[in-house]
Amino acid sequence: MKIFETRTAPNPRRVRMFLAEKGLLEQVQFEQVDIQQGENLTPEFVARNPMKKVPVLELDDGNCVAETMAICRYFEEAFPDSPCLLGETALEKAQIEQWLRWIDFYFMMPTGMCFQHTTGYFKDRMTPVQAWGEECGKSVEQFMHFLNDALDGQEYICANRYTAADINAFTTVAFARVVNLRIKPEHSHLQAWYDRIKARPSAQA
Amino acid sequence: MKIFETRTAPNPRRVRMFLAEKGLLEQVQFEQVDIQQGENLTPEFVARNPMKKVPVLELDDGNCVAETMAICRYFEEAFPDSPCLLGETALEKAQIEQWLRWIDFYFMMPTGMCFQHTTGYFKDRMTPVQAWGEECGKSVEQFMHFLNDALDGQEYICANRYTAADINAFTTVAFARVVNLRIKPEHSHLQAWYDRIKARPSAQA
Repeated sequence: MKIFETRTAPNPRRVRMFLAEKGLLEQVQFEQVDIQQGENLTPEFVARNPMKKVPVLELDDGNCVAETMAICRYFEEAFPDSPCLLGETALEKAQIEQWLRWIDFYFMMPTGMCFQHTTGYFKDRMTPVQAWGEECGKSVEQFMHFLNDALDGQEYICANRYTAADINAFTTVAFARVVNLRIKPEHSHLQAWYDRIKARPSAQA
Repeated sequence: MKIFETRTAPNPRRVRMFLAEKGLLEQVQFEQVDIQQGENLTPEFVARNPMKKVPVLELDDGNCVAETMAICRYFEEAFPDSPCLLGETALEKAQIEQWLRWIDFYFMMPTGMCFQHTTGYFKDRMTPVQAWGEECGKSVEQFMHFLNDALDGQEYICANRYTAADINAFTTVAFARVVNLRIKPEHSHLQAWYDRIKARPSAQA
């Protein structure tokens, strides 16, 4: 199996941490794609993912799976003996998915939009809307505050154990520094949780 | 079980169609929430979903699950004998999730943002950015074109059968009319697929 990724980007990091926690990193060969140079816009890449994004998983039979969480889902289902990160029971799976979507919609996506719309990083291929980027930055701050409250008295975000929700929130906190959005001194629960997740070997994946 | 929803909104419709296809509509009691009047902003509602969105599933034991796809995931896992809409094998589950996320990120979300940022529907509780709403409208048109091409020679969006991807794309096409984004005459594959999905009883749920 091969994963096309960009090592410095946050979504590929989510997948690498997921695989590291499952002990599956060595099942996969990683191929680097330089997105700033537009290597993700070539016909070869678009054939793998028409949305032109990293990461993309290519299976040995040539089937491709794009989208971070779809790739994680593949490994969760294909390797059922590895540690479970998306839930065991129906309720647990649903509650983890609820958190994954909150993190995507209210945290990761506005962080990415703040980055894309205020820094001009991809201005050769999109129309940045500065005012929207700034609104997104405010949403990110609100979500960090919400997450801090949710982590009061809890070691992990949900399900009483380490899950994909911890990975996705952790990589977003790390990524948010590129737009100077950081954990505030008063967010002690969020900071303690961040330090716990960072101390695991998977954070270096 | 109870679902708090707003009958006219697109996300609750996704859940109702999902339940209808599974034959599970009668398992659930539906309670209407008037979002324009702000009934989703009350402390009682926020206790069920801190993000203040519909739909929310409340189980008989009081546990709540927010987020459309997390609710669908609950029913998919809790009723394994009902028709499968999120995939059987690891590859199928991953490819359906890829499509669900493409539909969410490139179709449903920009449609919702075009609505929220150009019509001022929620201007009492958010800062609309007109230019961003207009950019989102262009993304929606591009995705409809992409979807039309993807449906050339295919009865359903993925996995060679009716899945949640069909539900989510169908409800988005229907919703996009509120911002006057419609299937174009040249998108014959998309139109034929839309008519097929609409002809199923679940489209009336």
